[in-house]
This record gives sequence, C-alpha cells and structure tokens, in this order.
Amino acid sequence: MSHNSFGHLFRFTTWGESHGPALGAVVDGCPPGLALSETDLQPFLDKRRPGTSRFTTQRQEPDQVKILSGVFEGRTTGTPISLMIENVDQRSKDYSEVAKAYRPGHADYAYDAKYGLRDYRGGGRSSARETAARVAAGGVARAVIPEVTIIAHVVEIGGDRAETFDAAQIDANPFFCADAAAAARWEVLVDEARKSGSSLGAIVECIAIGVPAGWGAPLYAKLDADIASACMSINAVKGVEIGEGFDAARLRGEENADPMRPGTDGPEFLANHAGGIAGGISTGQPVIVRVAFKPTSSILTPVETITREGDATDIMTKGRHDPCVGIRGAPVVEAMVALVLADHKLRHRGQVG
Amino acid sequence: MSHNSFGHLFRFTTWGESHGPALGAVVDGCPPGLALSETDLQPFLDKRRPGTSRFTTQRQEPDQVKILSGVFEGRTTGTPISLMIENVDQRSKDYSEVAKAYRPGHADYAYDAKYGLRDYRGGGRSSARETAARVAAGGVARAVIPEVTIIAHVVEIGGDRAETFDAAQIDANPFFCADAAAAARWEVLVDEARKSGSSLGAIVECIAIGVPAGWGAPLYAKLDADIASACMSINAVKGVEIGEGFDAARLRGEENADPMRPGTDGPEFLANHAGGIAGGISTGQPVIVRVAFKPTSSILTPVETITREGDATDIMTKGRHDPCVGIRGAPVVEAMVALVLADHKLRHRGQVG
Amino acid sequence: MSHNSFGHLFRFTTWGESHGPALGAVVDGCPPGLALSETDLQPFLDKRRPGTSRFTTQRQEPDQVKILSGVFEGRTTGTPISLMIENVDQRSKDYSEVAKAYRPGHADYAYDAKYGLRDYRGGGRSSARETAARVAAGGVARAVIPEVTIIAHVVEIGGDRAETFDAAQIDANPFFCADAAAAARWEVLVDEARKSGSSLGAIVECIAIGVPAGWGAPLYAKLDADIASACMSINAVKGVEIGEGFDAARLRGEENADPMRPGTDGPEFLANHAGGIAGGISTGQPVIVRVAFKPTSSILTPVETITREGDATDIMTKGRHDPCVGIRGAPVVEAMVALVLADHKLRHRGQVG
Amino acid sequence: MSHNSFGHLFRFTTWGESHGPALGAVVDGCPPGLALSETDLQPFLDKRRPGTSRFTTQRQEPDQVKILSGVFEGRTTGTPISLMIENVDQRSKDYSEVAKAYRPGHADYAYDAKYGLRDYRGGGRSSARETAARVAAGGVARAVIPEVTIIAHVVEIGGDRAETFDAAQIDANPFFCADAAAAARWEVLVDEARKSGSSLGAIVECIAIGVPAGWGAPLYAKLDADIASACMSINAVKGVEIGEGFDAARLRGEENADPMRPGTDGPEFLANHAGGIAGGISTGQPVIVRVAFKPTSSILTPVETITREGDATDIMTKGRHDPCVGIRGAPVVEAMVALVLADHKLRHRGQVG
Repeated sequence: MSHNSFGHLFRFTTWGESHGPALGAVVDGCPPGLALSETDLQPFLDKRRPGTSRFTTQRQEPDQVKILSGVFEGRTTGTPISLMIENVDQRSKDYSEVAKAYRPGHADYAYDAKYGLRDYRGGGRSSARETAARVAAGGVARAVIPEVTIIAHVVEIGGDRAETFDAAQIDANPFFCADAAAAARWEVLVDEARKSGSSLGAIVECIAIGVPAGWGAPLYAKLDADIASACMSINAVKGVEIGEGFDAARLRGEENADPMRPGTDGPEFLANHAGGIAGGISTGQPVIVRVAFKPTSSILTPVETITREGDATDIMTKGRHDPCVGIRGAPVVEAMVALVLADHKLRHRGQVG
Repeated sequence: MSHNSFGHLFRFTTWGESHGPALGAVVDGCPPGLALSETDLQPFLDKRRPGTSRFTTQRQEPDQVKILSGVFEGRTTGTPISLMIENVDQRSKDYSEVAKAYRPGHADYAYDAKYGLRDYRGGGRSSARETAARVAAGGVARAVIPEVTIIAHVVEIGGDRAETFDAAQIDANPFFCADAAAAARWEVLVDEARKSGSSLGAIVECIAIGVPAGWGAPLYAKLDADIASACMSINAVKGVEIGEGFDAARLRGEENADPMRPGTDGPEFLANHAGGIAGGISTGQPVIVRVAFKPTSSILTPVETITREGDATDIMTKGRHDPCVGIRGAPVVEAMVALVLADHKLRHRGQVG
Repeated sequence: MSHNSFGHLFRFTTWGESHGPALGAVVDGCPPGLALSETDLQPFLDKRRPGTSRFTTQRQEPDQVKILSGVFEGRTTGTPISLMIENVDQRSKDYSEVAKAYRPGHADYAYDAKYGLRDYRGGGRSSARETAARVAAGGVARAVIPEVTIIAHVVEIGGDRAETFDAAQIDANPFFCADAAAAARWEVLVDEARKSGSSLGAIVECIAIGVPAGWGAPLYAKLDADIASACMSINAVKGVEIGEGFDAARLRGEENADPMRPGTDGPEFLANHAGGIAGGISTGQPVIVRVAFKPTSSILTPVETITREGDATDIMTKGRHDPCVGIRGAPVVEAMVALVLADHKLRHRGQVG
Repeated sequence: MSHNSFGHLFRFTTWGESHGPALGAVVDGCPPGLALSETDLQPFLDKRRPGTSRFTTQRQEPDQVKILSGVFEGRTTGTPISLMIENVDQRSKDYSEVAKAYRPGHADYAYDAKYGLRDYRGGGRSSARETAARVAAGGVARAVIPEVTIIAHVVEIGGDRAETFDAAQIDANPFFCADAAAAARWEVLVDEARKSGSSLGAIVECIAIGVPAGWGAPLYAKLDADIASACMSINAVKGVEIGEGFDAARLRGEENADPMRPGTDGPEFLANHAGGIAGGISTGQPVIVRVAFKPTSSILTPVETITREGDATDIMTKGRHDPCVGIRGAPVVEAMVALVLADHKLRHRGQVG
C-alpha cells in the first residue's frame, strides 16, 4: 500500500525531491527478455524536459536517465529496474520566503499540516520534477505493451479548444497540439500569460490504440478506475474523464450507445462513446481519456496568505515556472496510461492466461 | 491487489451477482470499540434501495443487511466485519436473449472477451446491485470518521442543472436534489424518459465537511487520486472532478488561487477552488467531488449488435431498469467518499501518529 | 494490506468468529472457466471437520460449505467466490470465567491488549474454527493447480516420530500418519493426553509434487517466504522449515548439495535437500515443508493467570478441545500450500507469460 | 504486491545486482520528523560488511550508504527515503563457466527456468549482496521503533551450539556469538571449513526487547507470520521458529504454558515459551526468533551438474565466498525483524490509534 508506488503486478515506486541530488523510480515485475536501454527511455524524458521552449520553465535539466539494475546485456532480467535522474540545475536561490509562508494553491500548507515539516526548496516532493521519474518508468511500460500506441495531445489551453486532429502536428509545435491553427493561437495566449506573470490551465487527451478486449477487471480494478487514479495523481490535475465523460451525463441512452456489427476481427463498433471501456474492461476500441490541468499556482501576483506561525502576509512566486503546466503534462499522461495498461496486461494474463 | 477490494488499512471486499442468492462485503481493518449495529447501516441501504419511487427500477429488494462477524455486544472488535444482503426479487424471467447477444453499452461483450463466459442473469457481477454492498461498507466507514459529514446531491439530470443549494431539500424529493425547482423540472424530464423507454445521465456532487488538514499522501496515495478511483469504479461513471475540476482548466492562476488569512482555528481560506485538497493532501476545507453518470444503456430502443457467435442482430433491454441511474448514484458516491476518507484517516494516523 | 487477506493475484479473505452465525472466505482472482461446485470443496472440509474421532474436539459441526457467488452453471466466472460455512454447534455454555480472566497461551490477553475488547466465546476470531474457511478456499486453489498433488501428513506427535512413509496409510488412521506403526503408538499417546486433560504438539510435513520450475520470485515474494508466512499464520504453529530446514544448519556444503544430471524432461536432481526451492523459485523437485504445532493451551490443569482487572487468579480450560491440535492441522497446511502455489502460478504467468 | 517490496504502511523496496553499478532500497511510509543521517545507518552496514575478518568473504566493499531523498535538514520528511550503496569491488573475473553451467544449490537453474536469462555475474540478483540494502533499510526502521532493542546473535555453527549468553561478547568476536567459549571453538571450526573449501550452516537467534503488547494482527498479518516471511526471504535461510519453535511440538500443554501474575506494569509472565507472540499479537514479552542458514553452496568440491544446454558437466565455485554465510546473517536478521516491527507499530497505530 506504499504511498509512492503504483501498479500491482507491474509496479513502480518513485522517490526524490526537486532539489535533492537525484530522483528516480524502481520498476518491479517487468517481464524478462525485453530489449531495453537508456536510449529507449531518453526520448520520453526529452519530450517532458523543461527548458525546451519559452513556454515551459527555464530550469535547465538534461534529465539523463540511468539504468542501475534489472537489465543485463541489453535485456530485462525480470528483476527490479532502478532508474535514476540526477538533478543538475538546483539554483541556489533564496528560499527563505517560501520557507516561512505558504503559497496558496501549492501543497505547502497541506504538507506542513500533515508532516509538521517540509523540504521547501523548489516544492520538495510536491514538485512537478517528480513526473520525470514517471516518464522514465512509462518508457519501460511501453516495452511491455508493444501492441499499443499511446498518443497524448493538448486539446485546450486557457479555454481555447483545438478543433482538428492531425497526429503529425503534435510534435511540430511546442504545445503537443494536433491542430496547427490552435497551436498558433496558443502561442499568443501562453506568451501573454507568461509575460504578465500569470498562468493558464489546459486539457490533455490521451488515446491508446491497440488495447485488446479484456484488460481490466471488476470492480475496484476497473481499467478506467486505475486510469483515473493514475491521472489524478499527476500534479495540478483536477479532473479525469473517459470517452464522452461529463458530456455523457447530457446524452440520452440512445445517443450514448455504441452499436456493434460483425467485423473482420471481432465486432466493429459504430461509435466509441464509452472510450473503449465497458464494465471496467477494455472492449478493443481505442481507450480515450481526458485530463484537466489547473493553471499553476506559481504566479507573479501577490496573494494573501499566512506564515508558518499563522500571521497574515502575502506572497508571489518568483523564479522559474511553467506558464501552462498542462503542456508538459502530455508526456506525463502518456506515461501514466502506459503504466496502467502494462499492469493490466500482466494481471489479465495472470488470471486468464 | 485483489480486483474486488478497495482501500488499504481500512479495506473492503465485495462479492455477489445480481441473481445469486446474496451479495456482500467484508470490511477489514475497522478500529475496535465503535458502536455498530445493523440499524446503523440500514438507513444508507434504504436510500439506495430500488423501488422507492417511480423514478427508479421497480425491482423490489428489501436490502436488509446482516452483520455476520466482527461485532460483539454492539461494538466492533477490530476483526473483519462480514455484511450480507440477500437477493429476494430475482424475477425468473427469460434471459435467453441476453445470453445470446451483447447489449451495447453494457459489460456483456467485455466480460465475455475477458473471461470466456459470464453470468448473464441481470448483468451478473456488472449489475448495479453490487453497489448495495458498497453502501453497507460505507456505513461502517462513517462510524470511523464521525468528525466528517458527507452529503451527496444530484446537481444535473439530462443537462438540466440545479441552481440553488438547500440541504434540507435533498431528502424531500426522489432525486436527492438540493433545489426544489429543479426537482420539479426533473420529475417531468425523468417521467418522459421513463415512459419513452429512454434514459438520462446525471451529475452527482459530494461534499465532505470536517475533514481535517493532513489526510492523503503524495503521490500515488493522493486523497484525490483515491477518490477518483473510488468513484470511477461505480457502475456508469465516466468522469470525476475535484473542486473546480475541468473548469479549472479555463481559469487563470489568479482566479484559481485560494488565498489564506489567519483564522480562529487554523487558516481561513477565502475560496475553495481546490476542492479541499492540495498536493493530494486535505487542507481542512470541504472536500468537493463531482461525478458524471452516463445514461444507462438499458433502453427500449433496439440497437444494432452481434451475437456470441458473431452474427448481426439487434437487441433492446426489456424489463425493469432505472431511467436515470445517476439518481441512486448519490448514496453510492457518499459511501465511496466515506470509504476513502476512513482509510486515509487510519493511514495518516499510522504514519504520523 | 488487509490483515485478514492472503495472496496477491489469487487472493482470499476470511471472516468469522467461533460463535457467530457463520464464517467464510471470499476468494478473488480465480481464473474463469474452472469446473467448481460445493461437492468439490466438501471433502477437504470433511477431513478437517471436528468430531470425527475421539482424538479431536467433540464439537459437532457439519461444516457444510455454500458457494454464494462467482460460479455460474458449474464454472468459475472470474469474479469473487464467496464461501460460507454456518456455525451450528455453538454450545450455550457459560463463558463468564474466560470473559474475566486470560487463559495463558491463548490469544486472550493479546487481543485485549490490542483491541481493548474481545469476543471471548470459544476464542472468537482466534479460534481454530477459522481454519475451516482456509480449507474451503484451499479447495478452490486446488482447482487452479491441477498439475500439482499436495499431501500433508503428521510426522511426529509428542516427540514420537513416524519412521516410514506409505501414502496409502495417511487416510487409514485418524492421525494422517503415513506410518501404521507410529499411528498405533500415537493412539495410546493421544488417548493418555486426552484422558489426563493434557495436550500434545505435532509436526506436519507437506509435499507438493508437480510444481514446475519457475514459480516464486525474488526477493520478498520468494515461494518459501510466502509458504512460511502462510503456515505461520495457522493457529498454534511455532515453526516452519523447507527441505532440510534446521538440519541444513548442521550439514556441510558438500552434504547439502543437490547435484544435477541430464534427465528425460529437464534436469534430474540427485537429492532434494533444498525442498524444491532455490533462490525463492521452484526447481521442479517436490516442494517440502514441515510445520511445528505447539500443544494447545486448552488443558484441564489450572494455570496461574490474571483477570482483566489485573488481579491474580488461576484458570483451567473446561469443555471440548483437541488433545493434539496438530492432527487437524494437516488438511490446513495442505490448504495453505495450495493457496500459495495457486497465487504463484498466476503471478508467474502474469509476469513471464 | 511487488515482488521486491516488503511491508505495508512502512514499506521498502530493494533493487540491484551483485555486479551492477549500485544497489539500494527505497523506504516509504516513514514517519516524519525523525532524526536520520547516513551516520545513523552506517554502523549497521559495517557489521554486515564483507572482508572484516578471515571468516567472511574477502570481497572488499566499503558499503557506504547514501541518502538521496526523504531527509531534510537532518529529519525525515515522511516522503520516500532512497538509499544507495555503490558496488566497488566487482572483480573482473571470468564468469564464462558459471554462465554456461548451473551451480547446484544456487539459484542459477531456477532463475533460468523462470526468466529464460540471468545476470550470472556474482549471482546477480540472488547474491547475498542484496542484504546490504535490507540492512540499510533496517537502520531506518530502528529510528521508527526507538522503544525496541534488537539483538541477533549466532547460536550454532556447524552443529556446535553456544551454551551461555553474555550480550557483551556478541561484538567481541567475529561470529556475533554471546558465548566466548563457543566463539573460540568456532574459530577452529570455520577455519577448517574455509581452508578445505567447504562451508558450514548456522543458526541465528534474534531477540527484540521492548515490543509493547498489541502489535500484530489476526490472521494473515500475524506478527510471527510476517517475521517468518521476512526471515525466510533472506538468502540461504531454510527455517524459522518463534519461541520454543519446533521444540514446542515435543512439550505437553502444561510444560508450554506461560503463566501470568500481576506485575508492576501489566502482567508478569513466568515463562516465555511463546516467544512474545500469542494469536499473532505481541504480548509485551521479548519477541524471540531463530533462523536456520544452510551452508553456502559455494564450495571448492566439484559437484555434478548440467549446462544451459542440458549436458552433463561438473562445477566448483572458485573465488571469494563466505565459509559460513550465517555469520553475516545476524545483522540481516536484526534488520528484517526491525522492519517488521516498524511496519506493525504503524499499522497498529493506524487501526487502533
């Protein structure tokens, strides 16, 4: 029941703080014999890496992942895979202000209320840097599910929605946006937020194609329940929906049906309102998830708050931050979906053979 | 990692099918010495019970809960509490059609794809009857967290939103609606759907007041991640959001801040966009969750589908069903939130003391 | 992490007290499609059932197991299998003495120290009646591992060892003893203990034949570690050993080696000091476990003790009890070994395919 | 259910191979605010460290532990504590023989049978070097249970038992032996085994003083069941017993009783046959465990075996090894007992408060 582990048969545990020497993940339960090297994992880290455009934090982290165990002569051995990423750019800034007062919207107050102390440097454990470890672990997960293609893209920033889907566009702009026109609009939008010291929210959609029918399980191991947990565990996420999601609540039964017809390889579905999951079990259709990221609370506007001693003060977050943390959320959502699917593939194989 | 268990230190396991002799839950890890009897649990089951108004299924189930273990002389002993509810009204209808063909939107196809067979009578394990077991377990959870008040109410049916909140109204209408005017509108709306053999979706909001700051844990045991998983595991749920939820993605950082001010008993928050959770840990503000229920797929309109042998056919769902399954979802969401909070109370006490 | 659950992918949870209305087990994660009915499980319960000879407690319990869920038309569905056994012979004796004072060697004091209260009737949750639920669950486990034959027999009672092994003898005497001569000696021994109100310890050996090489996993899911936990969880067990066990500590490396030679179907081993497990993983040889049962603390000799209020008194255990609880331990050990193996079969299949 | 994790509320995960760059442990669930630094952990590693006397392997490893996360300004923060120990003395010897053929008694064949491949360098994951990670994690566990004193000592080597107990002797000889005379005899015994390329088994006893009554839980989280699992997971261990252990099977009920008498602080026990645990729950008496280590299979005598291809050959283990691996087992058993107790302290506090 470890607080910092996720998954069951395929399971990972992350550790590390924003300003410690390193952070990492231990991946356990990986099938043996899979080809795996650091170069397989690095591209995923590079996508999430900060400092690659002016739309993300300017912290410079190479985010080079090292495999410390569990791989021998280029193949997984079935034993734990320890992944480590060193922190390089822990700027020796002055943290006295954030040590003393709570930044509203951050985890500062909650951590202190829980633990009685906190590593306040760069947010400590609650920093989005932790997601680097997830992304590295997610790279291992992908090796477990080669039959599945996972694509996450940003579908909305600051309330402005993408309208078209061209997969080729996703890596062609700094927003993981499948709609070139939207990407152009977002450039203006995010620049404005960045310059004014504000921040914007975003919605990320993730599509997993190739998931066979049968993964997941009733009732507390539903595929969608695990995806919901996985995505809600990402920093700044406030909502998760599957398929039609909240809009399903506004449809009638007839409108929300996914009729079936005989197909060449199992049933052909005439719609996918369900987002590829029924009764917690995959149907063979694409699994579709949408995740809402709030605007980061790191803004240059002073906000009323209290000190650790309980006195009134105000605080504004200086220093480097993401004007729209949801952008870099796309590779993180991909990783989490991969991690859930890898676990469920193995669990299904375990129970059903 | 049991598929049918939920929670860690406070944990429950459910069992049972729609048309078996009984269903139940085993609750493990309950603190000892709590006053508990069947009469403490029955009111929660009565709220969820079918057949109480024309807006729910007409299946008649008394849903009498029996405590088979773990309680001695009116107090919990700390050992497993076995709860059992007998199935009474398993109408001996003809299931040959649903045995042969898959009802689109139901779990029929997914179960067969996974397990190779399924108990098709009344949906078997995927029936919403399983939620009776959750509600019973949720009653035990409430005894663990007497400091918390949990209220779920339906905020939207078929796209029609409630506008006002009067807690006294919630139990005064068959919709768990806090807005009397909306309840009156919904009566017409749901009647129409029922008569036309259609179905409607709904959104349930749940508020937990009295959760102290400090419950939850980074990063894969976040309070919101566990609530997301708990709610997404309920039949027909397609989305979960915390606080502002998806709307947070449309706010700017300044708008989404929850400023703090010194209060009489800890900080006073000037807003609660976060829904009472920051960094996965409760802040002491009310915990606010919204859950989207799809319209049930049990409708009288024939839908294109395939048989078990893969041949084309169509099917419509005869018999008793809920025209808006989200209504009876309200007590189920309450139960799931109670179960998550009880677990996190104990986990927090375990780690931090 | 439930206190009353065991296993991971194949997992069971037990509930119930000695003098409650019933006790049971919920088995989760069972593969679908296995033939299973109550008549498959009953023979295992009948072996463990009390009152079958004068060498066990005279409590009369039919121990009829009911399957309440998870089986449809004679086959497992992959959903939780709820097993229930009603308590019939809860004699309405006077428990006032045991309510007031702690029986040394029993769990009375420890339960009170932990929970502050206890169900003292017949030992409550700490009664050996709980093992009926394990044995029922173990019957399900056997259906999962048809390739494995599991035989437990008593190898020592009161310090008197069986010397020969004739499997046909095991069910031919009331001691599960493979040595007819020893069984004859034990008859005298146990009779004497029974008549004098004393009790005897025993050692049970369990052999699992047909376990393929490869089940188990380093390092905290070692097959032997899980067997040790499984067996030590049985009431009255104080020791567990694998293969040579404690005697291995008295051998030299050369004596303890299990040399290999090419065989017709994998390696042929020239010895089995290891008891079929190396590095926590099965080798394909028979898995061999020995388990030490203490003499039950229920004896007719008064023993010095204290009351709940802490005053000096003495107590003797009147009423029905097993003069040698280890005898009925044999089917329980069989069940626990089956449960561990079933779980590891599925876990292995999950990870390795 | 991770294969390489242990514990529940206080939980650790180990990773690493004998000849990889490093090995380590991630400790999760540690209470916040505990004073902890590398210098608190190093003494435990130094006790286990190889190469300190001629009676252990001559591999030279400084075993310097680094804390990479979870500690801030000298105090635990409640977040995961990542511990890393670099491998230094991975001698670049020729592993071609062990790559090709299976060493009987080692995990070589079992790993290959399970995973299809293995890191054969120095035993890979099955190397006793993994226990360094446990010992480091055990150091953290001790900080969680300052009320408990844990002492492990070797009570038997090669069949020769220690007869007296003088705690001051334990660290005064290279055998962790509390009996100076036995230590002198063992010097001759182990020297002889070492020189002849043989190996000896050993029995380690561990005593935990100060465990309050009430830790542990029925029935699958019994304190003794978890200790059995913990100890059986240590390399080369083949048996575990609590209190009288196997000898309890040879006692009569009267002899095995632990009578109680009113004491100054709770009951005074007149004996401790139970080894401090009844019904799976601690009684307040010292917890006593004995663990049997087999002689290591690394011996200079050639043993018949097969190659990976299944051909007959023989093999002897050249290079550095422990003539009696049980000696260095003492600090490992201490660590495992500490880890179990820390977990159960937190679990008990969680459930009971």
